[in-house]
Amino acid sequence: MKKNILIGLSGGPSTAINASMAGVIRAASASSRFNTVYGALHGIAGVLSRDIIDLSPYSSEEKLRLLIQTPAMALGSCRKKLTAADWPAIEQVFHDYDIGVFFYIGGNDSMDTVLQLDRYFKENGSGVQVIGVPKTIDNDLPVTDHTPGFGSSAKYLYHTMHEIIRDSEIYPIKNVVVVEIMGRNSGWLTLAAGLEHFMGGVYPQIVAIPEIPFDEFGFLNQVKELLKTEHTVICAVSEGIRNHNGDYVGMETKSGAVDTFGHTYLSGVGKYLELQIAEKIGCKVRSIELNVMQRCSAHLASKTDLDEAVQIGEAAVSAAEAGATGIMMVFERTSNHPYAVRIAQTDVSNVANLAKDVPECWHDLSDQSVRDEIKQYLLPLMQGELEPIRDKTGLPVFLDIRGIHSTRE
Amino acid sequence: MKKNILIGLSGGPSTAINASMAGVIRAASASSRFNTVYGALHGIAGVLSRDIIDLSPYSSEEKLRLLIQTPAMALGSCRKKLTAADWPAIEQVFHDYDIGVFFYIGGNDSMDTVLQLDRYFKENGSGVQVIGVPKTIDNDLPVTDHTPGFGSSAKYLYHTMHEIIRDSEIYPIKNVVVVEIMGRNSGWLTLAAGLEHFMGGVYPQIVAIPEIPFDEFGFLNQVKELLKTEHTVICAVSEGIRNHNGDYVGMETKSGAVDTFGHTYLSGVGKYLELQIAEKIGCKVRSIELNVMQRCSAHLASKTDLDEAVQIGEAAVSAAEAGATGIMMVFERTSNHPYAVRIAQTDVSNVANLAKDVPECWHDLSDQSVRDEIKQYLLPLMQGELEPIRDKTGLPVFLDIRGIHSTRE
Repeated sequence: MKKNILIGLSGGPSTAINASMAGVIRAASASSRFNTVYGALHGIAGVLSRDIIDLSPYSSEEKLRLLIQTPAMALGSCRKKLTAADWPAIEQVFHDYDIGVFFYIGGNDSMDTVLQLDRYFKENGSGVQVIGVPKTIDNDLPVTDHTPGFGSSAKYLYHTMHEIIRDSEIYPIKNVVVVEIMGRNSGWLTLAAGLEHFMGGVYPQIVAIPEIPFDEFGFLNQVKELLKTEHTVICAVSEGIRNHNGDYVGMETKSGAVDTFGHTYLSGVGKYLELQIAEKIGCKVRSIELNVMQRCSAHLASKTDLDEAVQIGEAAVSAAEAGATGIMMVFERTSNHPYAVRIAQTDVSNVANLAKDVPECWHDLSDQSVRDEIKQYLLPLMQGELEPIRDKTGLPVFLDIRGIHSTRE
Repeated sequence: MKKNILIGLSGGPSTAINASMAGVIRAASASSRFNTVYGALHGIAGVLSRDIIDLSPYSSEEKLRLLIQTPAMALGSCRKKLTAADWPAIEQVFHDYDIGVFFYIGGNDSMDTVLQLDRYFKENGSGVQVIGVPKTIDNDLPVTDHTPGFGSSAKYLYHTMHEIIRDSEIYPIKNVVVVEIMGRNSGWLTLAAGLEHFMGGVYPQIVAIPEIPFDEFGFLNQVKELLKTEHTVICAVSEGIRNHNGDYVGMETKSGAVDTFGHTYLSGVGKYLELQIAEKIGCKVRSIELNVMQRCSAHLASKTDLDEAVQIGEAAVSAAEAGATGIMMVFERTSNHPYAVRIAQTDVSNVANLAKDVPECWHDLSDQSVRDEIKQYLLPLMQGELEPIRDKTGLPVFLDIRGIHSTRE
């Protein structure tokens, strides 16, 4: 009995989520095991509201290529945290749409949804398989070597820092630049922003990640000390840096709002440090928030990242064909020279609601062997350029599944 | 008698200034009229302090190619406004270095330096030629069809808006995004950020340029009105928008500092409007400042822009060979289908301290014929990708003339 499959996307956007979705569509369309490939608009919220569309019109290679080069989330997203009350309603929708496998592409919070649904379906004997496909620019999912989306964001951060550095040192005056980088709890992205320095460059002289307690007094002294011999001081700072008490730096200047998962809403540590430097040191200072550009810059996507994102989506379908459920697909790095990964799977309970920090053995960022390891870890993930499909204007085209962009997709 | 030449860079950075410098170096090195090609560090300030270097080591095609792909200003910059007291000192330096032609690459303020020096040298009969080469991402220089650097920034803004739009509309909740774009007095860059909409796309629904008085009350009403039918409202807003009295919008929240040319230092109109929307409308709102990325993103440079920047530098040398002085090189667009420009020259007094606004006949941005004209004007300037020289890490390499970047140039 051939069943249908359903894809949902959840959490924050990246440049690689749609590529993973393309992988699932491609493999599921080619599979003899499945009928229709459905997509839920706005993730699990769209399942509950039955905002479900047939993705068959997007299964041609041409459409899949467009989908791969489109950033963010072609089906929309949600940040809904499931409760037990939602389970039977979801089961009913899956029954009505004859869904055999539900693929959920998301981060640690989304894997909690996979975990809950899988347990419920197993207890109920409904037979629906639930498979998690990882994504997060933060790279903070356990088990997997890295997450789809991270490589492209790392590449954006490296290139942008490389350019900001040049922009910052043109005037012969003392100046400080503080670049604020995403990563609520983990410093993976900020390490990518520091890569130029780890590879032997002068800048950015200061790299601050959430895993290492941030000493504001020590930071200001370090900046002062550097300014004695250098005109320009550049700092790559994670949005999530915390002091020795575990409080976010500059907390008092922030909103204190929390999202539906209870995470404190962060913004502005860069601006906070800018004001501290202006007040306590008094030199020219600028803060730069790389904002959503670090997660949506498809024009600078890593081809390696997009290729792997497609492959992990395809592998998720193979796992489904083999009967897997309650798992998340993972990358295992098998070699660095040459770089090689194989795709495996892990029980989703190893991932759901858990996070992977930058390891403690990497905390001494001044250690040359640590720098070499960081470089070796990051560089392969950032390689390769996608040549996008362009329209007659010469500009890249994005796929518009939800029909909300009018004539220029 | 063969003379030497001197190049100086001035004002704010762009991705195309070094390309124009490469053009001057290439043509002057090939010319039988000139001996050594010198560069002044930090523009006219470096002339006065005699921070002058021999650029011969950078005249090979390989080094010039690296220079062309390097953003910002390889010789550093300055914002020095000349006074009459500086003229004799500069003349003495030029005499000591046997300078026959001084090429100054900059914007309207820098052209004032060209004008002053040319008049002084003519009055004194010193025989030094002074030639201006245009650059500014703002595109606000008179006479020339456009300025080198603008095309690349326009391309960055189009692509980044295209991606931000995708990133912004993933959640099924009402939200507003305000994107703040450079351009102190002119809206050329903001038009590029609005191009997606002018080409028939939904977003950004609101485009605000300095040339059109900004009605804050009307803006908030327009946002409210749009939110009745659309989930996402995206606004492209120039940093320099002013109200009907000519005051910068959100003036009260800004520093009020002025630079050495008397320009009010601008920042934060995006943040200001974000706070207004949060307070008066109460929906989710985010402001994004594209900051220095819009002027230094070499990875997204327009090949057309870089090629033209090189050509205008080369043409400046030809003009010098023909004995020109007190001029600025300009582009004249001779055709749109196919796009073609020729390079000419104008008396620098037609440019110095003057600005070119977005023309009044373009102020009705809802008019389809205006939109078509904007599209026709912008698109050719944004075409083509440069394939950068990369090192063994796979990452693009920048040229480091001043020796301040250590191992990774």
